[in-house]
Amino acid sequence: MSAWVLPDHIADVLPSEARHIEELRRDLLDTARCYGYELVMPPLLEHLESLLSGSGEALDLQTFKLVDQLSGRMLGLRADSTPQVARIDAHLLNRVGVTRLCYCGPVLHTRAGDPHATREPLQFGAEIYGHAGLEADIEVLTLALDCLRAAKLEQPSVDLADARLVKALLAGLSVSPQQLKLLHAALVVKDIPELKLLTKDMPASVQQGLLALVKLYGDQTVLIEAENVLPPLPGVREALQNLKCLADRLKGVSVTFDLADLRGYAYYTGARFAIYAPGVSNALVRGGRYDEVGAVFGRNRPAAGFSLDIKALVNAVSFRPLKPAVRAPWRDDSRLSAAISDLRAQGEIVVCILPGHESEVDEFQCDRELVEIAGQWAIQAMN
Amino acid sequence: MSAWVLPDHIADVLPSEARHIEELRRDLLDTARCYGYELVMPPLLEHLESLLSGSGEALDLQTFKLVDQLSGRMLGLRADSTPQVARIDAHLLNRVGVTRLCYCGPVLHTRAGDPHATREPLQFGAEIYGHAGLEADIEVLTLALDCLRAAKLEQPSVDLADARLVKALLAGLSVSPQQLKLLHAALVVKDIPELKLLTKDMPASVQQGLLALVKLYGDQTVLIEAENVLPPLPGVREALQNLKCLADRLKGVSVTFDLADLRGYAYYTGARFAIYAPGVSNALVRGGRYDEVGAVFGRNRPAAGFSLDIKALVNAVSFRPLKPAVRAPWRDDSRLSAAISDLRAQGEIVVCILPGHESEVDEFQCDRELVEIAGQWAIQAMN
Repeated sequence: MSAWVLPDHIADVLPSEARHIEELRRDLLDTARCYGYELVMPPLLEHLESLLSGSGEALDLQTFKLVDQLSGRMLGLRADSTPQVARIDAHLLNRVGVTRLCYCGPVLHTRAGDPHATREPLQFGAEIYGHAGLEADIEVLTLALDCLRAAKLEQPSVDLADARLVKALLAGLSVSPQQLKLLHAALVVKDIPELKLLTKDMPASVQQGLLALVKLYGDQTVLIEAENVLPPLPGVREALQNLKCLADRLKGVSVTFDLADLRGYAYYTGARFAIYAPGVSNALVRGGRYDEVGAVFGRNRPAAGFSLDIKALVNAVSFRPLKPAVRAPWRDDSRLSAAISDLRAQGEIVVCILPGHESEVDEFQCDRELVEIAGQWAIQAMN
Repeated sequence: MSAWVLPDHIADVLPSEARHIEELRRDLLDTARCYGYELVMPPLLEHLESLLSGSGEALDLQTFKLVDQLSGRMLGLRADSTPQVARIDAHLLNRVGVTRLCYCGPVLHTRAGDPHATREPLQFGAEIYGHAGLEADIEVLTLALDCLRAAKLEQPSVDLADARLVKALLAGLSVSPQQLKLLHAALVVKDIPELKLLTKDMPASVQQGLLALVKLYGDQTVLIEAENVLPPLPGVREALQNLKCLADRLKGVSVTFDLADLRGYAYYTGARFAIYAPGVSNALVRGGRYDEVGAVFGRNRPAAGFSLDIKALVNAVSFRPLKPAVRAPWRDDSRLSAAISDLRAQGEIVVCILPGHESEVDEFQCDRELVEIAGQWAIQAMN
């Protein structure tokens, strides 16, 4: 095989896409910064038990492992930065009050999520720690939408769910982890016959509640229907009220609900959201409340946040043209050098044409050039 | 061991340093862009033979290896992006003329370069392909200095060397790879007794030339002395002339020479430079000409460039203070939301104080706050 063939689902990002990704990266980080989210940079490599503790089997399978020559211990390449940022909040910062953090960097996956997915997403995310109230959920959801607005994504739509519904319905029952896993899988794919089978020994109200969840998707009327068909347990009522509050705070965005959506269940402990765009099948953003994410690091404090893959986002937004450049000749002339420096200091792209390359095609669209007129270097429009 | 202990020479980057690194990253990329260098993003993981072909033993030892579950093949985590960018120039872009590329991303090393070094540098670099003349060397060196200027590094000094001097002296002799390695090692540490031993069977002019190199370090007078003491071979003359030209183009920067400096020898084929700063023992930037870097990818075209570690650079420049933020209360009030959005759109950091957290210490220095005066939200200086 040729030396330059890359592994499957691994790719170089070439100039025009790379520039666009870099611009999105800055827009997202700047948006988070204006909300008071402080940037942190967790490492690519950690001890495996630190990277995976409390995170569940799915993340374990997604994580590349290798041996540290310095210690002989197993290391993992991060497949998700969320637990790393929780570790930073819990141990390095260890602040008493509200902490807002954001991050942006590559993560690596052993397997691609779908046939077109990359194994090296560029994960951007934001997290707020230390506030249990719905205000934190509202803030991260608003921030996520503002990030997509900064990225110029058209017509985002928000899908809401809540991890507490199933928990409330099953409260007090003894359900084995294996049974719970099957139950979640059946709910995610809305498999009613399988659900019936799995819940046949449960109390009728629980069975009916779980079966009802499968049909509770669509617009705001879902919440009214849910109040009617789900048992009036406190956990159920609180979740539905929270979802209504969240939806009410979203102005100018289409909102739907899918009360059986349990993806990433191991993580979430409250309201959850996914943000979609027209023509893109997978969610561009996933987020919500995951109060237990820092528990393994000894600090079980409230947390809410979201993350997205900039490499997926760049395919969902319109191409941004590069501004035209200025062409300059190459000479050992300090006045020319000064003229070029001035233009670059103003943010202009100035491409020097090296001797012998005058007739090559420019990679940049040059609409002006530096020319010497009566001993002065001046900028002139190009034909 | 605790779950949150990181591997040796691996660290989290916390908020104030992360913000500074991000600002440097943007300054460097923007500087390269204004020179017409297009951003590319090579992957973190590649097939081992692609990552290491032609790159020598040192890079092999620095490279973490792991198995691809999808193919069963060995993968490497990049320890240096330079060969990756050469691969992109050779195969993906495959342009006829001059190509200018830049990149910025983490690399991983199995072992730290020195006791304080990180194993996860943030490598930034720029490369120019397709021009064999000294103009390309001048451009990358000028760009490197402009990058350091943008990073606000004080008093950079440039150290120049040339990989052709030793090659020219040894031309025509049969020297085994093992002998060459010992020779380079002795030159790097300026070990004269060892050099005498290694060159004892060589022609007197070669031995004297190699021994002379060890003493040829210092200011511009080194070049004059070199002309006198080195044999007048064409390769020697060309290298010395190139070094003089390079030095003449550097205005306002201290320039020194070290003609026995052979670090990274496997790489370089012409003039080389290292850039230092006061109080920093290691070079912050290393670069030069490496015409053979793309050969293994079937396209042996001229190349010059440089790279640096932003995590090292950030420690060499002054801290940049964060601009003060605006404090805002939390309310479900659309006029307040609009006022906050306006401020954020102007680039202000607005931190919302969530209910119950009014008396916490702000992580941001807030010098203004949003207050409601006669039904209007207005900005007010804080005491």
